[in-house]
Amino acid sequence: MNDSERHINRAMLPEPTLRRLPWYLAYLKMLDLKHQEHVSSTQIAKSLNVDASQIAKDLSFLNIKGKTRIGYEVHPLTRALTEFLGFKHRHNAFLIGAGSLGSALMRDLGLMQFGLNIVAAFDIDPHIIGSAVGDIPIYDLAQLAQQQHSSGVSIAIVAVPPESAQDVANTLVASNIKAIWNFTPFRIKVPRHVVVQNTSIYSDLALMYNNMEVNVNNKNNIAK
Amino acid sequence: MNDSERHINRAMLPEPTLRRLPWYLAYLKMLDLKHQEHVSSTQIAKSLNVDASQIAKDLSFLNIKGKTRIGYEVHPLTRALTEFLGFKHRHNAFLIGAGSLGSALMRDLGLMQFGLNIVAAFDIDPHIIGSAVGDIPIYDLAQLAQQQHSSGVSIAIVAVPPESAQDVANTLVASNIKAIWNFTPFRIKVPRHVVVQNTSIYSDLALMYNNMEVNVNNKNNIAK
Repeated sequence: MNDSERHINRAMLPEPTLRRLPWYLAYLKMLDLKHQEHVSSTQIAKSLNVDASQIAKDLSFLNIKGKTRIGYEVHPLTRALTEFLGFKHRHNAFLIGAGSLGSALMRDLGLMQFGLNIVAAFDIDPHIIGSAVGDIPIYDLAQLAQQQHSSGVSIAIVAVPPESAQDVANTLVASNIKAIWNFTPFRIKVPRHVVVQNTSIYSDLALMYNNMEVNVNNKNNIAK
Repeated sequence: MNDSERHINRAMLPEPTLRRLPWYLAYLKMLDLKHQEHVSSTQIAKSLNVDASQIAKDLSFLNIKGKTRIGYEVHPLTRALTEFLGFKHRHNAFLIGAGSLGSALMRDLGLMQFGLNIVAAFDIDPHIIGSAVGDIPIYDLAQLAQQQHSSGVSIAIVAVPPESAQDVANTLVASNIKAIWNFTPFRIKVPRHVVVQNTSIYSDLALMYNNMEVNVNNKNNIAK
């Protein structure tokens, strides 16, 4: 079923809901592997530390309702979530910056499971242009517009040094890219019709370090 | 300078502030490369789409103040942020699950720049146990407690299939691990003294897909 058949208005979907849906999906997949057929929102709630009422509300955005006393059907709900989250479709993408993080992403077959298919990479380093990581060729960044034109790819993953992020973003926008997955900590600016999704794994690292310090300080204060 | 010399209470630091600090750092590093000596909060604000007053407030948590008309000194501020965010120290870590994403993380030298040093990986697959990715050996997960005991490592990166995440987390907690960087979409449960940092790159992918759909729908509505 597509969105209009389900009467889903994606623009109305709160971001926190969208962030929780993949948690439910991961949990449901596990139940499905164990051949569990039904699950209550209470059971999901207990396992994921989310309020049961929140779960019911989140799923109601997809027009999915559990049945009284039986709960949700695991397999159909797994399929509906996979479909809704866009993980079932194949989204072709370019990767910009085939350095350390970039080539790591090119090797991450997990992305493919979630519908993202990196078809080509681009770099400015003459030592790697012309080579490949797995099956994925690395082209000169100067060829981007031409490759976009011939392939119609509309997603680009940016894994360049942060100081180059804005220049690369400008090139991408000029080359008809519609969505940028930005792995740099640099906040790029793009026109409104272009989607930017920021993923800052190094910011998460800073959060983790900070919480470790907080824990250590708490312990020391208790010991005093 | 350490936290108490700076009079910083990390427990009081709001998470949004902590998430913005690495943006400032990325931007300052770029200015530093260009040999710019001073920067105003207005200039940072314009480049990063963050309110100038917010920037001043965020930096004041670190007891850093700009000077009237001159602004912040780029190089010292870069150093103070790097230090404060924990990127300057070396944090040794174990990686659990040397599959696709896991071995990608083992190859990401960027992590090292941000202070994270993966010293060993663990898996349950007999085909890869005993091998290595780069310099990093892959051990049997059953050896975890013993390796933790001899190395004192307190951070573990979890990149296993989501259905194994909770079992692995339990093993980690029992093996004296104090912080878990969870790359699975499964919400693991741990005792309060253990830090969990979740990084869900596939949730970000779902957000990007959704925003792309919203943009397409908007365009179609305008065209109607």
